[in-house]
Amino acid sequence: MAAVAAANAGRVPSYGADDLSARLQSKACDLFEKDVAMFPVTTGTAANALALSQIVAPFGAVYCYEAAHIVTDECGAPEFFTGGAKLIGLPANDGKITPAQLSRAMGFADEMGVHHVKPAAISLTQATEWGTVYSLAEISAITHLAGQRGLPVHMDGARFANALATLRCSPAEATWKAGVDVLSLGATKNGALCAEAVVFFDPARAADFERRRKRAGHLWSKFRFLSAQLLAYLEDDLWLENARHANRMAARLVQGLKTLPGAKLLQPVEANEVFVEFSERVTQALEAQFKFYRWPLHASDDGVAVRLVTSYATAAEEVEEFIAAAQHLTRWES
Amino acid sequence: MAAVAAANAGRVPSYGADDLSARLQSKACDLFEKDVAMFPVTTGTAANALALSQIVAPFGAVYCYEAAHIVTDECGAPEFFTGGAKLIGLPANDGKITPAQLSRAMGFADEMGVHHVKPAAISLTQATEWGTVYSLAEISAITHLAGQRGLPVHMDGARFANALATLRCSPAEATWKAGVDVLSLGATKNGALCAEAVVFFDPARAADFERRRKRAGHLWSKFRFLSAQLLAYLEDDLWLENARHANRMAARLVQGLKTLPGAKLLQPVEANEVFVEFSERVTQALEAQFKFYRWPLHASDDGVAVRLVTSYATAAEEVEEFIAAAQHLTRWES
Amino acid sequence: MAAVAAANAGRVPSYGADDLSARLQSKACDLFEKDVAMFPVTTGTAANALALSQIVAPFGAVYCYEAAHIVTDECGAPEFFTGGAKLIGLPANDGKITPAQLSRAMGFADEMGVHHVKPAAISLTQATEWGTVYSLAEISAITHLAGQRGLPVHMDGARFANALATLRCSPAEATWKAGVDVLSLGATKNGALCAEAVVFFDPARAADFERRRKRAGHLWSKFRFLSAQLLAYLEDDLWLENARHANRMAARLVQGLKTLPGAKLLQPVEANEVFVEFSERVTQALEAQFKFYRWPLHASDDGVAVRLVTSYATAAEEVEEFIAAAQHLTRWES
Amino acid sequence: MAAVAAANAGRVPSYGADDLSARLQSKACDLFEKDVAMFPVTTGTAANALALSQIVAPFGAVYCYEAAHIVTDECGAPEFFTGGAKLIGLPANDGKITPAQLSRAMGFADEMGVHHVKPAAISLTQATEWGTVYSLAEISAITHLAGQRGLPVHMDGARFANALATLRCSPAEATWKAGVDVLSLGATKNGALCAEAVVFFDPARAADFERRRKRAGHLWSKFRFLSAQLLAYLEDDLWLENARHANRMAARLVQGLKTLPGAKLLQPVEANEVFVEFSERVTQALEAQFKFYRWPLHASDDGVAVRLVTSYATAAEEVEEFIAAAQHLTRWES
Repeated sequence: MAAVAAANAGRVPSYGADDLSARLQSKACDLFEKDVAMFPVTTGTAANALALSQIVAPFGAVYCYEAAHIVTDECGAPEFFTGGAKLIGLPANDGKITPAQLSRAMGFADEMGVHHVKPAAISLTQATEWGTVYSLAEISAITHLAGQRGLPVHMDGARFANALATLRCSPAEATWKAGVDVLSLGATKNGALCAEAVVFFDPARAADFERRRKRAGHLWSKFRFLSAQLLAYLEDDLWLENARHANRMAARLVQGLKTLPGAKLLQPVEANEVFVEFSERVTQALEAQFKFYRWPLHASDDGVAVRLVTSYATAAEEVEEFIAAAQHLTRWES
Repeated sequence: MAAVAAANAGRVPSYGADDLSARLQSKACDLFEKDVAMFPVTTGTAANALALSQIVAPFGAVYCYEAAHIVTDECGAPEFFTGGAKLIGLPANDGKITPAQLSRAMGFADEMGVHHVKPAAISLTQATEWGTVYSLAEISAITHLAGQRGLPVHMDGARFANALATLRCSPAEATWKAGVDVLSLGATKNGALCAEAVVFFDPARAADFERRRKRAGHLWSKFRFLSAQLLAYLEDDLWLENARHANRMAARLVQGLKTLPGAKLLQPVEANEVFVEFSERVTQALEAQFKFYRWPLHASDDGVAVRLVTSYATAAEEVEEFIAAAQHLTRWES
Repeated sequence: MAAVAAANAGRVPSYGADDLSARLQSKACDLFEKDVAMFPVTTGTAANALALSQIVAPFGAVYCYEAAHIVTDECGAPEFFTGGAKLIGLPANDGKITPAQLSRAMGFADEMGVHHVKPAAISLTQATEWGTVYSLAEISAITHLAGQRGLPVHMDGARFANALATLRCSPAEATWKAGVDVLSLGATKNGALCAEAVVFFDPARAADFERRRKRAGHLWSKFRFLSAQLLAYLEDDLWLENARHANRMAARLVQGLKTLPGAKLLQPVEANEVFVEFSERVTQALEAQFKFYRWPLHASDDGVAVRLVTSYATAAEEVEEFIAAAQHLTRWES
Repeated sequence: MAAVAAANAGRVPSYGADDLSARLQSKACDLFEKDVAMFPVTTGTAANALALSQIVAPFGAVYCYEAAHIVTDECGAPEFFTGGAKLIGLPANDGKITPAQLSRAMGFADEMGVHHVKPAAISLTQATEWGTVYSLAEISAITHLAGQRGLPVHMDGARFANALATLRCSPAEATWKAGVDVLSLGATKNGALCAEAVVFFDPARAADFERRRKRAGHLWSKFRFLSAQLLAYLEDDLWLENARHANRMAARLVQGLKTLPGAKLLQPVEANEVFVEFSERVTQALEAQFKFYRWPLHASDDGVAVRLVTSYATAAEEVEEFIAAAQHLTRWES
């Protein structure tokens, strides 16, 4: 916020030709240890849809997890921005797709030939929609397969900072060194007002991306306010501090929930999301006290999980409070 | 063919303002026992994609079988024509989707609200991709659900004549009387050179459809050649004769295959498609002699069926020849 | 800026379900003296393109000035958002199109029938791209014609406040009372960080607009920051104060320029833009001292105007400084 | 027609894997004296829109004549197929655009940068919408300019055969040797039932074009019927015979009209279209006897020409009859 207020001073060129925007670009290259092209946008949906539209033809297929954010939560933005490309969803209990699944699905496309959409890209969510984190080896296995077919790999990094905090590797290692071509780098969920960025690790691949952003209405005239947010976010490792804190709070939550007989943790907690099942009675009682989403379990027909998300702003006391309440409510459950 | 040649005589108005086209429209109304709006086009893909684009917003969801022709065989045409609507595929062993599945999937959309595409239409394939046929009761159960939500129902009738021959009901009963709003009426697979038609059972719903057809490049200037095909097809019940013949040949094939220990029929044969599993050895030997497709079994990872399609042009001798060959090849299999 | 900072306090619901957003909606209804549906977005391009996509079919034609912002400055956003609708540009020296032009252009469409895009909407820019302002009578004449054909009228109001300041009428009189159906209400050029809004004067016409905004990536999760800007902008008439100031500065500029023999004013200055022609020598000298755009004169082949824009932040001293410099430079020109 | 009937015999592979289609491909390479990729489709609209979609990005600009067929007669098909590219129309009395106009229009785009659509292609109509024919020098001047900017050039050759008959050069000279990259080759207006073709002179540029055709619903299953038409059309120079005949009939018409005081020829007649102005009284009287279109004169507000089109099927007697009638009607006009 202070950064945005500071950006308000004086007169500056519009549409991104300002100092802050130049500094951000330079910061991005430092961060990823190579020449990259970074494009700030306002929402994660815009970042994902624009990124995909740049790398996928309208008759292309994007392979991803069947309940990926791009599939279920963006109201068809990827289809809109790509001009009708198809997202082909693959099942995955923990939100991670595998090279074997990808091979089979693309083999089907090969057999169908011109009658089917053409394999065009793979999209991974990191951290995943289930709060798990792809290991570097898992990513590399997928990008290796993609490379064999000449397909680009997109990473939806709405929670990239949280994944990075878990992987304890450099941003470069977590992305282009593991074969990722384009990253949607999230910031809003981790502290910014309204800032995400599309990062192309090969700037040549970003040709004309600015026109895509413009014609989607995502080129701000007072662009510096967007750049200022991302600069403040990335400088001095604020983004990683925030993510580490959120992850620690999630771990604390897990520790507490593990001791409760009536709470069933559904996935390994590797970032800042905790999926847990309570009885319906307990869930309702918790809903009366706390704010969280129920999450459909795709595997079963009517099962529903509770999704608990920690953030940079979550206080340890809030975590304790939730655990105490759950403890109280579940004490007589088996 | 004779009808097309006859249409070649003399000078006639272009773009559909000819006599044959008027007669076809009138024939369509007779056939379906009500005022309908029929639009001839050249391919099944065009018929389906145009029909869906008329009834679905770009941010809409079309619910259908997960391996429906519109999902796997049209290279993204529905997404293209609708401007990015999403096809949401539901699993089904026999190619038939159910009201329960539809309710659950739409319930998910309701919970997601504005973040998800909006339930916009249901598309059924009749006969299905697995050679089965929806009963009138099955159709009505689905259209009833659709009606409760105000959603239109599309029927992909590439093999509509074959289904009708099986259902032994009138075209009206098989469609609008059962709640269907739009039909893609196939003719090419059943005798025409290149003719399909989109039929709206409520002409008011077809407003501006002509412009959609035109801007997709599907308005012929010498339109009478298209109308002539459909007229010849529908007049004197040629289409039903053709379909009945094809279905009889399929039934004969089934009868023969049932006696073979090494042939496993995969679905009830209710139209003109037979899905059968042979051993890999037998399949290869048959491939050397006959022309057919291998068909992936979505349920299993690597299983493959043989798809046998009979048509108006299939001779009984051809069927016997196939059975004899299969009998010879499978005689030592269990 | 203060309003945005204030919006940063505490925890609030996301995606627009917050208090500020509710207050904004209510403010909008007060302002326009009727029930309206207002949708904040980030850029003028998004506002215009989303508004048009809501009211125009993909095979539709939008009639507008041939050098309207939507035609030349939005990189095809209207075509993108509408799924391919065509903008049909009409010539106009002062940026204002007329009922006679519209009638003729639509008459051509009528004759062409299905081969041509269908007349679907009219879009006016207020104040225009040439700094002129449509009178209420001029607007009504156009909306009357539109009404006869059942077409909606869109107003690109990137400089709506400046026009309003000139018209000295109420926001209601300048829009829906004059027959306008949808307004893109600008705020960024007139003081906001990044805020524009689409206003539907008949809320029923806005059905599903939220999904359009979402799938274009224009639904902020931290929506209150957007609402806060617009609230601060509209409350206490800040927007009109800003616009009046800008207009006054433009008038002062005109007064000064009129006295210079070497400056040719190109259009009546009715808002906050001044188009003036200097000799090439003077233009270059001014460019060395001040920041402004050269503007192509569509009427002639190589003529170029200087566009001077005043804003809420323009100081009277700046205006004087420019006039003094121009006076100095042009003193020997005829 | 005989060719189509002949194609009806026997069983053949579908979707273009047949003998006739292979022969057509080979014929196309012979005809154009190089390796080309030819794709038959059903309508001129499909040919043009598919061709443009292959060479133009969704944020691209196609420069063409302001009343080109692609602008006014295809109901937005180019915008639809390209995903929203913009056609930028340039004025031209005789239907021919010039390098000077193109330079100026692209210069404007250059100045506007990312805010404007990106110059992406040039489209010429040959013969033009006004029945004139670009000389080889005129074409080369335009393609030279295009080459300097790396832009592809499309030729809408709905009446290509008529132009070729006038130019008296080879198909190669009239296209790729003059710098044309993609041709929409018309056949329907010149004898076929429903056949046009897209020809890429560099087959590498046609990558994935088949998928574009498929997803537009323009891949026939019984493809041979389409190929058969084009083969019959191109073999033994039938197409040129037809075109020469049509041009001769147009020349005869001109000869007759020139002698009439009350007939004003509007353009040099260089192909098979004659644009002529009669008094309103004469026009109406002719309309009572003959079938033709009135054609708006874009230059003036309400002037209307009579468009007379001759074809392969026009008999000399018909021409004489028209001239006689016009002579009779105009005898007292000045």
